[in-house]
Amino acid sequence: MSYFPEVNKVKFEGSKSTNPFAFRHYNPEEVLMGKTMKEHLRFGIAYWHTMTQDGSDPFGQPTNIRTWGGATPLETAKNRVEAFFELLVKLDVEFFCFHDIDIAPEGNSLEEFFQNIDTITDLIKIKMEETGIKLLWNTANMFSNPRYVHGAASSCNADVFAYSAAQVKKGIDISKKLGGENYVFWGGREGYESLLNTDMKFEQDNIARLFKMAIAYADKIGHKVQFLLEPKPKEPSKHQYDFDAATTMAFIQKYGLANHFKLNLEANHATLAGHTFEHELNVARCYNSLGSIDANQGDMLLGWDTDEFPTNLYDTTVTMVEILENGGIAPGGINFDAKVRRSSFEMKDLVLAHIAGMDTFARGLKTAVKLKEDRFFDELKEKRYASYSKGIGEKIVKDQENLESLTAYAMSHDKIVNESDHLEYVKSRLNDYLV
Amino acid sequence: MSYFPEVNKVKFEGSKSTNPFAFRHYNPEEVLMGKTMKEHLRFGIAYWHTMTQDGSDPFGQPTNIRTWGGATPLETAKNRVEAFFELLVKLDVEFFCFHDIDIAPEGNSLEEFFQNIDTITDLIKIKMEETGIKLLWNTANMFSNPRYVHGAASSCNADVFAYSAAQVKKGIDISKKLGGENYVFWGGREGYESLLNTDMKFEQDNIARLFKMAIAYADKIGHKVQFLLEPKPKEPSKHQYDFDAATTMAFIQKYGLANHFKLNLEANHATLAGHTFEHELNVARCYNSLGSIDANQGDMLLGWDTDEFPTNLYDTTVTMVEILENGGIAPGGINFDAKVRRSSFEMKDLVLAHIAGMDTFARGLKTAVKLKEDRFFDELKEKRYASYSKGIGEKIVKDQENLESLTAYAMSHDKIVNESDHLEYVKSRLNDYLV
Amino acid sequence: MSYFPEVNKVKFEGSKSTNPFAFRHYNPEEVLMGKTMKEHLRFGIAYWHTMTQDGSDPFGQPTNIRTWGGATPLETAKNRVEAFFELLVKLDVEFFCFHDIDIAPEGNSLEEFFQNIDTITDLIKIKMEETGIKLLWNTANMFSNPRYVHGAASSCNADVFAYSAAQVKKGIDISKKLGGENYVFWGGREGYESLLNTDMKFEQDNIARLFKMAIAYADKIGHKVQFLLEPKPKEPSKHQYDFDAATTMAFIQKYGLANHFKLNLEANHATLAGHTFEHELNVARCYNSLGSIDANQGDMLLGWDTDEFPTNLYDTTVTMVEILENGGIAPGGINFDAKVRRSSFEMKDLVLAHIAGMDTFARGLKTAVKLKEDRFFDELKEKRYASYSKGIGEKIVKDQENLESLTAYAMSHDKIVNESDHLEYVKSRLNDYLV
Amino acid sequence: MSYFPEVNKVKFEGSKSTNPFAFRHYNPEEVLMGKTMKEHLRFGIAYWHTMTQDGSDPFGQPTNIRTWGGATPLETAKNRVEAFFELLVKLDVEFFCFHDIDIAPEGNSLEEFFQNIDTITDLIKIKMEETGIKLLWNTANMFSNPRYVHGAASSCNADVFAYSAAQVKKGIDISKKLGGENYVFWGGREGYESLLNTDMKFEQDNIARLFKMAIAYADKIGHKVQFLLEPKPKEPSKHQYDFDAATTMAFIQKYGLANHFKLNLEANHATLAGHTFEHELNVARCYNSLGSIDANQGDMLLGWDTDEFPTNLYDTTVTMVEILENGGIAPGGINFDAKVRRSSFEMKDLVLAHIAGMDTFARGLKTAVKLKEDRFFDELKEKRYASYSKGIGEKIVKDQENLESLTAYAMSHDKIVNESDHLEYVKSRLNDYLV
Repeated sequence: MSYFPEVNKVKFEGSKSTNPFAFRHYNPEEVLMGKTMKEHLRFGIAYWHTMTQDGSDPFGQPTNIRTWGGATPLETAKNRVEAFFELLVKLDVEFFCFHDIDIAPEGNSLEEFFQNIDTITDLIKIKMEETGIKLLWNTANMFSNPRYVHGAASSCNADVFAYSAAQVKKGIDISKKLGGENYVFWGGREGYESLLNTDMKFEQDNIARLFKMAIAYADKIGHKVQFLLEPKPKEPSKHQYDFDAATTMAFIQKYGLANHFKLNLEANHATLAGHTFEHELNVARCYNSLGSIDANQGDMLLGWDTDEFPTNLYDTTVTMVEILENGGIAPGGINFDAKVRRSSFEMKDLVLAHIAGMDTFARGLKTAVKLKEDRFFDELKEKRYASYSKGIGEKIVKDQENLESLTAYAMSHDKIVNESDHLEYVKSRLNDYLV
Repeated sequence: MSYFPEVNKVKFEGSKSTNPFAFRHYNPEEVLMGKTMKEHLRFGIAYWHTMTQDGSDPFGQPTNIRTWGGATPLETAKNRVEAFFELLVKLDVEFFCFHDIDIAPEGNSLEEFFQNIDTITDLIKIKMEETGIKLLWNTANMFSNPRYVHGAASSCNADVFAYSAAQVKKGIDISKKLGGENYVFWGGREGYESLLNTDMKFEQDNIARLFKMAIAYADKIGHKVQFLLEPKPKEPSKHQYDFDAATTMAFIQKYGLANHFKLNLEANHATLAGHTFEHELNVARCYNSLGSIDANQGDMLLGWDTDEFPTNLYDTTVTMVEILENGGIAPGGINFDAKVRRSSFEMKDLVLAHIAGMDTFARGLKTAVKLKEDRFFDELKEKRYASYSKGIGEKIVKDQENLESLTAYAMSHDKIVNESDHLEYVKSRLNDYLV
Repeated sequence: MSYFPEVNKVKFEGSKSTNPFAFRHYNPEEVLMGKTMKEHLRFGIAYWHTMTQDGSDPFGQPTNIRTWGGATPLETAKNRVEAFFELLVKLDVEFFCFHDIDIAPEGNSLEEFFQNIDTITDLIKIKMEETGIKLLWNTANMFSNPRYVHGAASSCNADVFAYSAAQVKKGIDISKKLGGENYVFWGGREGYESLLNTDMKFEQDNIARLFKMAIAYADKIGHKVQFLLEPKPKEPSKHQYDFDAATTMAFIQKYGLANHFKLNLEANHATLAGHTFEHELNVARCYNSLGSIDANQGDMLLGWDTDEFPTNLYDTTVTMVEILENGGIAPGGINFDAKVRRSSFEMKDLVLAHIAGMDTFARGLKTAVKLKEDRFFDELKEKRYASYSKGIGEKIVKDQENLESLTAYAMSHDKIVNESDHLEYVKSRLNDYLV
Repeated sequence: MSYFPEVNKVKFEGSKSTNPFAFRHYNPEEVLMGKTMKEHLRFGIAYWHTMTQDGSDPFGQPTNIRTWGGATPLETAKNRVEAFFELLVKLDVEFFCFHDIDIAPEGNSLEEFFQNIDTITDLIKIKMEETGIKLLWNTANMFSNPRYVHGAASSCNADVFAYSAAQVKKGIDISKKLGGENYVFWGGREGYESLLNTDMKFEQDNIARLFKMAIAYADKIGHKVQFLLEPKPKEPSKHQYDFDAATTMAFIQKYGLANHFKLNLEANHATLAGHTFEHELNVARCYNSLGSIDANQGDMLLGWDTDEFPTNLYDTTVTMVEILENGGIAPGGINFDAKVRRSSFEMKDLVLAHIAGMDTFARGLKTAVKLKEDRFFDELKEKRYASYSKGIGEKIVKDQENLESLTAYAMSHDKIVNESDHLEYVKSRLNDYLV
């Protein structure tokens, strides 16, 4: 049985193709700078948006037509596994990501929940072995259930902390079972509705406690996994503690977590925090902490997470520039944390939307490679910062100067001459690189 | 000669007073929780907004009528000192703050600039001795002059770095000369216009270099001063590195500056970064790094720094709650980084505006003290977090649990019961406290 | 049987009361400027937030504990009527508002839906007669059901237009049945997800068609009701056509609807559109089109409709200033389009939250009355615009001047003298009025 | 003498050219859809940004190196005319725009100002005749001088109204003298700092008065000019009355100005108001009021007018789609209301920046033409709205239905079937069209 009967395995047909179910730009085996596109891009699909998102919004009921509904929640969950792997295979996507509650019904007790997880991950494991598809990361959903109304690790209710710990332990167990390469924490309720009744320091101490327990447990069971923290400034909480990349790095440093934690960055979260995505990627690189990315795009005129499929060539280009500068994204990947518009409610939209995202990233990669091969940005920066490779500049960066010596220098060099950046020309040139 | 001849020394006359030139709420010697209002509030006035801001904006010429203009820039600078201390005395304000270029003309060379600074600080020193008024902090303006078009310590031009170093050295010298309690860095051009031509890591390394030189120099000359970094997310730069409190703490930790640097936080900068001011104050407290504050208020519907005088009682109340929790703000203070509206262009508006700000803060202080004396927030939080003072909660915060033990606990405690926060009631009660 | 057994009829007990279930400021029969508070404020409660909102958000399941669940949707709907009127009576609230789907289950066909509406409105009618409580307005929910995914009157699907028309006809029928004073249109899906596939003019023409049909039908059945349009800039749609008050007035004028349509303005919608609420109220007054208000408050740092209960005294003060200037809000009212926070999930929070909102508005009213009685704003403005009551100003406003005559005047009056607004002082004085 | 000696007349050299001073995409005489690029695009250059903007910002002094400084303001003004026409000719730009104070020094009296305007416009007239370059529009700057601190036509000071009228009269006189095709009003101070002291209705009545005087005067002197209003939501004012296109259309309708006034729309003003630029263009088209455009781009993460040169291909594409749908922009044009970055301070950056903008618009035009020739959007919309060309839909748009007849229809057609928009696919296809 097929869930996407109209769709065959999606193939690269080139930019002239008018087949909606073909890649026009993503050619998995094409080699660029010594690696295949597939190796560069390490695409992943998100279980939540693709398999469980229903098209509802705060003012509207579900619209999505989905054909995997079963007689019981568990049966639906099993059907989803089938449908998901069919989609992954047809789209030639190598990785996937999930929250615990995406894959398995919560049932009526923690015990039942864990049994359901076991049942479904058994199925998933078989599918992974059959297809070679791999787990990029999993995580525990500690924000949807009403028990998390006041937070998870940051909850004012210690029983909730304990429950969270149990979900995290199970998450690490299934990460090991499925060979997950990363394990993600996103704290949608780790924040506050109001500071009036919140002890922010206490709550953050507790969050750090949970992370240290997670490190200790993974170590104990011998699972070498990269932990990732995912920043988001707000939504659902009024304020979330992992506001952006820099805030999260402040936290990671404060609590001594840098050896085990990197960042999982999302484009739409960047803009909600008042940043471009490339800024966030660059900040992560400054701290040597770029772990993985959640690929999507937001609407700059809307104040919430729209999680659109990425179709903007400028955005994918600068993202791929950052990833190339990082020496690649592995063991992370490019996970489509993106959902079809509520008005794209047919099953085939899931295929069309992922093709759109993959083609847009393929174009971004190709442009980034051209820029790199031409040393476009390298030359720009070498020329711009040239004064630090000689004379006083060189001595400054070699830490051979101090305030007094520099004052002496400045007294005789106080007629400063700067050069124009010609940014308008740079941007116009960049347009010529877009493929 | 007087610059404010219509105004006598401003006195507290109580809330029924209709004298515009009286305090209706600020009563400097009134004792609250064992300290006078004056000791609690440690008000400062900013040289730049009060003495050099002219009422121009990006679309308009100066409007402010100011009577201190002299025949030469230096004469004007001297007149300003007279006028400024007259204002400080009449408003009973104990502290002041300035950038180097606020007080002294830049002249035609660095040497001339330093001579002008010496001349004016000699005058200021005399005034300080006469009046007992103290220097809260000074700083170097490394953003207005065109030489800083590409940044100061982060400039791509090494000569600019050297010039910055000279300004900082001079700033520390005059801090020592005038007994400054803090020294501030605000990096208005330490950021970027575009990431396309920016090496963010290199630039931040250089900024840290300058800070370390400053620490070393202050130590060498035996000046024990608290260094402060002032976050602002943007404006004038497209992005500024010290985006907000947390970002700045990430930087301070990365470069090992925590022993010498704390934060100078500004209300309007907080909101530009997407935060409330109390959030920023609270973040600083979490890192034990609340240094001083720049008091003003922004317009939440405008995307730039409006630097309005603080008149919102909610804002000053929660600010003073944070300051009380911090055990006071000393050696920092509450510096009015606020400018009169362009349409408040008369000399006397300077007096009226500061009275408005001081009265509003006095009311905030009185409300905060009442809340503290009633243990309003303390009780709220003790009750809310009570589960961590006993049972599993206590063991969690004593680090006696791990993922496995908590999983065992959660398996038998999976029917979580939370309590409502009743936030609407809390906010309504808070209204009753406003004085 | 009682749904709020812990709560008796809420009474005014004065500002010293510590009874959470008492009004501390709202005293319904207190007379101000010749009208009782109740007459001034005309409070209404919104069926949707109070009776059907469940505490879910885009990332979380329902949290609200509600005791009116029945064995069938219709039974639940009947229980809600009981609970709702119990709440209205206990809070001494005179008006209510609803969408059709709030009160009655949609069932499996349009026919069944209309039957359910008939059944429930029969019940409501009895309750209204028993209690004297009145219908402020009702409306048709033409945005939640998936049929409205592309809009209602603006849908690209003509069958959806027809369905909308049926809902509106039924809405006007029950408005007549229940003696509704106003009838509201809020077009949550009357907008677009993308302009790429949207014919904006065609869609707006169709919306105007529906409105004209509604006017014609109300006229035909002899129901004199005030139609109201409610602006909102976005959410759920990417862009909504009734963006703000001015945009909606452009539409009303273009399509010749001004004789039958006024505005229903919401505080949180104002701020989402980049305005203060008083601005929107003032715009409506400029067009003589202030109909009714949806009272709530938003969070200026969040980009979505938070619909918080109003607790900010500044906001309710300026709102009541505008309402007093308007000569009152009747036949409109102050409808609490506000929902308890997700963390305020107990039944009694519904009571506490409305008390908070009503008390805050009562304080706003009292402050506004004091300001009016003191002619605070009147004097300010009379003085400010005095130049138009004499000389050249008077001739300008009497339309006795033209460009040539004014040029002649200006040539000899080109040394303009303006006066300072002293806005900082004005704001400080306003603080003294807050009660 | 030449002001741009390094630059020859800029020629089209094709997309492979590496000559920074060549057009790579703009080929003035290339014919598309029966018109030359030049006729389609009707480029204009703005005197203010190009000739008088100095690189200062609210925190920084001027950076721009400009070589036209003379011994007196008038001499500088004369030099600017030379330089400006050299630039227009070298860039092959056909139109220009200016404010009165851009071209002529204000002097010490209104009389002197008008004399200076006469002197300079005499020069400009000669240059226009020599070169064939035309005046797209001029306007009066009624916002920079301190006299406009409280507004111009909306000022509380009647003398300021008179002064404004004189400037407008002179503006219309020189429009006639120079054969201007449009005359623009942008009300940077026609708004408010605070509603507390503002009579919004009175102020808007006065603005309308001035506009009616302008219409009457142009009519009297027989100058058939298209008046344009330019919306902007804020900056410099806290709120500006012409907030956006729809708000301005509400005003135009209210005061009966539609026969003489259309809109001059600016991209960066659109985004400051919370809209896309294509939205604003589309709104104007709905009201048959698209007059002219100010081409630039903003930074969506910054809350002020950055007025960047347009380099985003998506933006210029959808702009040109709207302009093609409008049947062209004449008698309006595409005026570069754009300024070089503060860090692009060399004279040649003026040339490079305009080339960047012109090339980006040329690419947008070429893409828009391809889309039009393929009927890309036409087919999308025809298919989407097909239900209105037959059956019930056709009767709805022919106004043959009413609420009762549609209710009858809906009762038997209540199982609505909608179709997916496949927006992700549409956006991906659009990427393939970019040239």
